[in-house]
Amino acid sequence: MFQELLENLRAQKPLIHCITNYVTANDCANLLLACGASPIMADDPAEAADITALSAGLVLNIGTLHQAVLPAMEGAGRRARALGHPVVLDPVGAGASAFRTAAARRLLEEVHPTLLRGNASELKTLAGGRGDSRGVDAAAADRVTPQNLDQMAAFVKALSARTGAVVAMTGAIDLVSDASTTFCIYNGHPAMGRVTGTGCQLSALSAAFLAANPDAPLAAAAAAVCAMGLCGEIAYARLGPQEGNATYRNYIIDAMDRLAPDTLEQGARYEMR
Amino acid sequence: MFQELLENLRAQKPLIHCITNYVTANDCANLLLACGASPIMADDPAEAADITALSAGLVLNIGTLHQAVLPAMEGAGRRARALGHPVVLDPVGAGASAFRTAAARRLLEEVHPTLLRGNASELKTLAGGRGDSRGVDAAAADRVTPQNLDQMAAFVKALSARTGAVVAMTGAIDLVSDASTTFCIYNGHPAMGRVTGTGCQLSALSAAFLAANPDAPLAAAAAAVCAMGLCGEIAYARLGPQEGNATYRNYIIDAMDRLAPDTLEQGARYEMR
Amino acid sequence: MFQELLENLRAQKPLIHCITNYVTANDCANLLLACGASPIMADDPAEAADITALSAGLVLNIGTLHQAVLPAMEGAGRRARALGHPVVLDPVGAGASAFRTAAARRLLEEVHPTLLRGNASELKTLAGGRGDSRGVDAAAADRVTPQNLDQMAAFVKALSARTGAVVAMTGAIDLVSDASTTFCIYNGHPAMGRVTGTGCQLSALSAAFLAANPDAPLAAAAAAVCAMGLCGEIAYARLGPQEGNATYRNYIIDAMDRLAPDTLEQGARYEMR
Repeated sequence: MFQELLENLRAQKPLIHCITNYVTANDCANLLLACGASPIMADDPAEAADITALSAGLVLNIGTLHQAVLPAMEGAGRRARALGHPVVLDPVGAGASAFRTAAARRLLEEVHPTLLRGNASELKTLAGGRGDSRGVDAAAADRVTPQNLDQMAAFVKALSARTGAVVAMTGAIDLVSDASTTFCIYNGHPAMGRVTGTGCQLSALSAAFLAANPDAPLAAAAAAVCAMGLCGEIAYARLGPQEGNATYRNYIIDAMDRLAPDTLEQGARYEMR
Repeated sequence: MFQELLENLRAQKPLIHCITNYVTANDCANLLLACGASPIMADDPAEAADITALSAGLVLNIGTLHQAVLPAMEGAGRRARALGHPVVLDPVGAGASAFRTAAARRLLEEVHPTLLRGNASELKTLAGGRGDSRGVDAAAADRVTPQNLDQMAAFVKALSARTGAVVAMTGAIDLVSDASTTFCIYNGHPAMGRVTGTGCQLSALSAAFLAANPDAPLAAAAAAVCAMGLCGEIAYARLGPQEGNATYRNYIIDAMDRLAPDTLEQGARYEMR
Repeated sequence: MFQELLENLRAQKPLIHCITNYVTANDCANLLLACGASPIMADDPAEAADITALSAGLVLNIGTLHQAVLPAMEGAGRRARALGHPVVLDPVGAGASAFRTAAARRLLEEVHPTLLRGNASELKTLAGGRGDSRGVDAAAADRVTPQNLDQMAAFVKALSARTGAVVAMTGAIDLVSDASTTFCIYNGHPAMGRVTGTGCQLSALSAAFLAANPDAPLAAAAAAVCAMGLCGEIAYARLGPQEGNATYRNYIIDAMDRLAPDTLEQGARYEMR
């Protein structure tokens, strides 16, 4: 199934509009090019909605949110939804400040994203509970483990039902869910946490998969999560004894550039519930 | 000829002020260091003109333009011209939104750049025609090919005559022209389109070549285009079977760092019309 | 001594809040992850102080300062000091414009940073003298050499006494001083000057060392300077004949990711005065 979704992405080369943070914008752009999509970044309210109209998908990432950019996110988000384009909301650091939490909630309510992707702390914050955000990483108490998997799966399913968005909670085990079905995904490598922006890249990649597969948002999001994790595995296997997180960062994007659709099909490790 | 232009750049180590987008700013800085120049980025209106006065060349790149930065670009641009410093205008995405198109036209008219560098869609938009901008990439219909080369060469020559700027239209074939002479340049590799910001890097490199060779802006711009394309070729030849666009990005900058002036002289592939 | 300081950093994994420039933010984030810390970037006045309160250390870097961000720096800086968190001020380009010079002085006076890290030109500017800033690099006349080492050491010691901050002046020889003791550090490689942001990375690294070693700010800053320089040496030794500054950039961060505490202990080259 995932093979076809990646083939669609490579064939359609969707233009993805990212309103995102300046820390990882370059990696998001190169990752989008690697997967077969094309990036455009534009975050001024004077043009954000126009750029969205030209694009096939939108990413709203609040990693270094500025007050002046929030209206651009809202305007672009509404335009994208009006046009039927997928919108991915990445609530980076929600819970870390009142400003971020409020902005993430506002975007969730105003824009009704197609996909909500975050770590457990961020998603718990958005769900109204208390996420123990430690900056932009999930708190230890919020990690998905084999022990709390059932509970976490019920959480993402309920959050999807309530918001209408596909929900992707990423961590050691990734959960991707709509209101009826949940993918539990086992791809990835712990070392990805030592590379800044792998989550941001995944959000951008998800928008590309969703744009190319508009009728299958749940499967598209799951395919993106598997693809990102699989590239993390392939890249890790390449690392030599002197190579660290900077080289790993490059190898992950390289792996996406080289990822064959059937490699994704065979390498995806997940179960559906 | 190009050998001497690169030798001048390496000897003079010009400081280049970039008012540019946050997506590719790091690559522009490292590319400038690689070629022998020195970068400084400063885009607040409170200091932009002062920083320009300290520098030897200026780049205005509207890749992620903010309304608040436009006055900084205008102020720095006017100061640079008043001081006789070269100004490179890179109208990234002109045509993709009314805001970008208006900003690019305004900068062209207010600042009178020394060099205008963009893809065919962007330059057609600036020329008042309709460029089929697809985000930040040239539309397929706007690509320079052997078939439309004469027509495109006439276009850039006319645009140069009208604006007073050297015009560099980059694509599969690159055209660099003033009102009387056109370089048709065949360096480069298609894979460069899979690395974000190679165009931005070329604009920064062009400013460095122009600053070090103030009496030969046309040749300096052509040398920059050849050098960037040649580095793309050298870097591509280094790529191994697992390496993709992230490694390619690094190898291009590496190649600039190692580019010997006589390698540029011998590797430049162009004809003059 | 430095071995233990790095072990503390790896054990505590401090969250470091960077209000920094967009050119090198990604490198700072990956360098922080490489050393064992965790990065968060947030520069809007609406949240900067809240993010600081959640963090263990703060970096104020004015490399691409915007007027709107200055209040965020002041607010976060005051909050950090009130909480007893270390604050590192990196006055990038002080002296290059009146705006930067005034901002750097204001932050020095308002925030009372724990560590002031810059090149000789920047620090001379802050000391009220005239630094011959050439953009973001130190002027040739300001370089620390064996010939002017005594004079420079006296300068940093006096600047530390006057400001109450540990002062780190970095260049070919690095000087790290409080009011009584000065480290003269001989680690590093000249090629580091061809990679953008190694100074920014050092400031971020210093904040991590200071956060993990609150009782020994002088030694922590000296350890950070030695570690960064040592990684520059290790990375340089890895470079092959086709590799330039882009690969060098990655290898420096890789080296930090792989740096064993006893390697730092044995590789640190310094004398104390």
